[in-house]
Amino acid sequence: MEAAEERPRRRPAGLGVLALLCSSLLLNVLFLAYYYFLSPPSQLADGGSCGLSWALRAARDAEALAATDSCSGHGQVFLDGVVGEDGRPGCECNRCFDGPHCSIRTPNCTADATSGDPLFLEPYWKRHAAASAVLVPGWHRLSYATTDGLFQSVELENHIRRLHRAVGNAVVDGKRLVFGAGSTQLINALVHALSPDANAAAASPPARVVATAPYYPPYRTQTAMFDGREYRWEGTTAAAWANASRNSSSFIEFVTSPNNPDALLRAPVLRGSAVIADHAYYWPHFTHIAAPADEDVMLFTMSKPSGHAGSRLGWALIRDEKVAKRAYEYVQSSIMGASRDTQLRMLEIVKVMLANLHGEEDIFAFGHDVMRTRWRRLSAVVSRSRRISLQRINPQYCTYFNRVREPSPAYAWVKCEREEDDDCYEALLKARIITRSGAGYDASSRYTRVSLLKSDDDFEVLVERVTDLVNAENYDDDVPRGSSSM
Amino acid sequence: MEAAEERPRRRPAGLGVLALLCSSLLLNVLFLAYYYFLSPPSQLADGGSCGLSWALRAARDAEALAATDSCSGHGQVFLDGVVGEDGRPGCECNRCFDGPHCSIRTPNCTADATSGDPLFLEPYWKRHAAASAVLVPGWHRLSYATTDGLFQSVELENHIRRLHRAVGNAVVDGKRLVFGAGSTQLINALVHALSPDANAAAASPPARVVATAPYYPPYRTQTAMFDGREYRWEGTTAAAWANASRNSSSFIEFVTSPNNPDALLRAPVLRGSAVIADHAYYWPHFTHIAAPADEDVMLFTMSKPSGHAGSRLGWALIRDEKVAKRAYEYVQSSIMGASRDTQLRMLEIVKVMLANLHGEEDIFAFGHDVMRTRWRRLSAVVSRSRRISLQRINPQYCTYFNRVREPSPAYAWVKCEREEDDDCYEALLKARIITRSGAGYDASSRYTRVSLLKSDDDFEVLVERVTDLVNAENYDDDVPRGSSSM
Repeated sequence: MEAAEERPRRRPAGLGVLALLCSSLLLNVLFLAYYYFLSPPSQLADGGSCGLSWALRAARDAEALAATDSCSGHGQVFLDGVVGEDGRPGCECNRCFDGPHCSIRTPNCTADATSGDPLFLEPYWKRHAAASAVLVPGWHRLSYATTDGLFQSVELENHIRRLHRAVGNAVVDGKRLVFGAGSTQLINALVHALSPDANAAAASPPARVVATAPYYPPYRTQTAMFDGREYRWEGTTAAAWANASRNSSSFIEFVTSPNNPDALLRAPVLRGSAVIADHAYYWPHFTHIAAPADEDVMLFTMSKPSGHAGSRLGWALIRDEKVAKRAYEYVQSSIMGASRDTQLRMLEIVKVMLANLHGEEDIFAFGHDVMRTRWRRLSAVVSRSRRISLQRINPQYCTYFNRVREPSPAYAWVKCEREEDDDCYEALLKARIITRSGAGYDASSRYTRVSLLKSDDDFEVLVERVTDLVNAENYDDDVPRGSSSM
Repeated sequence: MEAAEERPRRRPAGLGVLALLCSSLLLNVLFLAYYYFLSPPSQLADGGSCGLSWALRAARDAEALAATDSCSGHGQVFLDGVVGEDGRPGCECNRCFDGPHCSIRTPNCTADATSGDPLFLEPYWKRHAAASAVLVPGWHRLSYATTDGLFQSVELENHIRRLHRAVGNAVVDGKRLVFGAGSTQLINALVHALSPDANAAAASPPARVVATAPYYPPYRTQTAMFDGREYRWEGTTAAAWANASRNSSSFIEFVTSPNNPDALLRAPVLRGSAVIADHAYYWPHFTHIAAPADEDVMLFTMSKPSGHAGSRLGWALIRDEKVAKRAYEYVQSSIMGASRDTQLRMLEIVKVMLANLHGEEDIFAFGHDVMRTRWRRLSAVVSRSRRISLQRINPQYCTYFNRVREPSPAYAWVKCEREEDDDCYEALLKARIITRSGAGYDASSRYTRVSLLKSDDDFEVLVERVTDLVNAENYDDDVPRGSSSM
């Protein structure tokens, strides 16, 4: 009986266990099936190809390199950096930092405030790494011809026009857009395009290329280097005035607004001259936008709005068909168009800028904030000085930010006030600050240009040196003359 | 007894089942744990980030676009292509193909054999997609300065020197390497560097820039466009001979070897002239390598060895320090150096070329094979003609392939033999073949240049049209004159 009674109770239990066992085993099989068949094989090996094939290697290389070394936040590793013994590119340290990881601060380091390197925007692009990266396939744009049938990416042109419209700094409608290898190349391209045609040149005298001091030196140096028979560098507009009456030849006047070096807004000085309006700095990082610029010939560069100076892309906006055609043909004849690799990369960069305009990550809000803070800090230090002074810039209403904005110039135009400091460059060099003498800008050597748009490290060292200078000066004044060496 | 006997047999079975059940359940728990905890969360969502973070988006965009449309194998989609209504770049079709997917063959299509577009190498880079792709971070090389402290990537320079050594086509030791925006830019950079200095120019007469016909037209057009006071285009060397005696001024002679258009090897014609040796085509794709070139001033470009014409990178190899310095300063003053984006990309490209030299995937073996086959096919057709003929090129021993190699010129230099065809360009145009007239090369219009290095599609159409031409001609000869229109 016991056994007989046991059976009915025991059997269902056994069945239940078996059923559970079977379903559990079935589940095992399903998991195994998923594990081995549904997931890509590489996933087991290296953590997954995430559906990428040929692009994976380049993406991994870029991330791996960026991850190898932070360079202590005072330098960079670049994919094309010089390779060290470990077979990898090493840190390229910011100024005044040294050592394999840029961790060693150089004592009493001299500040270098010379170049217009727009490194103040580097942190912005690191913050937008995902959106701004671009992968260039090996077969990208082998041809000489690109989407306009010649040398210019139609999409990049459209996006640059959108950027101007959105920022409101230039009227693009009714104008041709011509790319060049930086606005630097377009300086001579436009001088060429506005000069008499080579055939006519024999008859008509060469065009006289001029600018008002202080002016950006390449207008002079580049025009003199190319030294074309159709034009001639004639120096400052002041000098040109005097000779103008005695000469019937046409003028080509460079008008830089905001001006480099002194950040002031400028207008043409000569009546009836052909004007090249250089608006490299007419972006909300550096100045208020009063109204869209609308000259016949305008010059812009990516170096200043996005900070990609190394990419070498500039553009001219030109109203007259014939002038635009001659400038375009100049770029064609001299370099067959700006690098297509750069045109692709800048397209991605402009897309990121456009996508963030007026938002929390607006690049111009970011840039203005950095540059305004720097100007404020420098002004505060210099305000204590009777030896050096800065150009005066007032807050102005900006149509882009839709409010009055504080000044944020790219450069300080420093004046040495003491009579004995007639070479301001030398005076600052003694204080271990490298600048660019006013003499190079055809201005008085009492002035010198101090760059404010480089890296944070550059600016910190600059402020240190200027502070030392001003403190020493105040110390001099407190003690009797001659004993300042005490 | 039965029951007593049953138990020992039944118990182990139950235990076994339970043990199996437990281990199976445990296995499932482990699977679940792996599934939910060990694998990155995104893997569940989108198939895995495979350890990538910021570089993933760009890599996916590039692959996704390449995968959207094969353009029927007769076109390309490019990341910066013109965007259609679907918000994506559409196919850019090869010549003679049309439609949204380049699937429609244009009937009676005219062959375009004008440009030197090196598209014959496009299939090579598609085959090496993984190795040749490069991901450019948004913060890459913002600065004007790069690894040489100025404008040139030291690593790229080193790799280009390695490439010359490995190919054996140029002596790089004891020479400075100067980059430019294509060898195009370096034409005028070298004319400038070899001309008297602007200050001295007033005293000494301008240098006389010459070449021997047939020569590459940009030597003339670009020199005439820049029209610097320190030099002057003086036409062909023949003409220059005549005037040489009457004139003490120095000569700058362009010597292109192999020559564009006729692929013949060239040597200087004038004694004592400064020579610019343009070796754009001195690579095993196009000619045998007899010995490393070793002139004082040599010109090269990436466009022809790798096919990246759109990237605009060329270089000069210069023995004399002063000449190299002037050429470098020219590039600095005119464009502030070749695009850093391009310098990075070309570094990756040269690495791939170097890694495969003399291997199964040797780019020069690939290139020579394509170009040799094209020359063979064209020659076979033209050999049946009494109306047109090709330049004669003999097989020659090549130090790179270490054997006698068949000819594989970049261009056919076609001569029209019939007396009435004194404009060979027009004669071929009537046969629906666009070429470049010999007149542009300062040669007889009985000659015209036919490009052979474009895409396979371009070449196929070209051979069709030439075959039509030759067949029609043979037909003409078989029937009595006047009735050929029957």
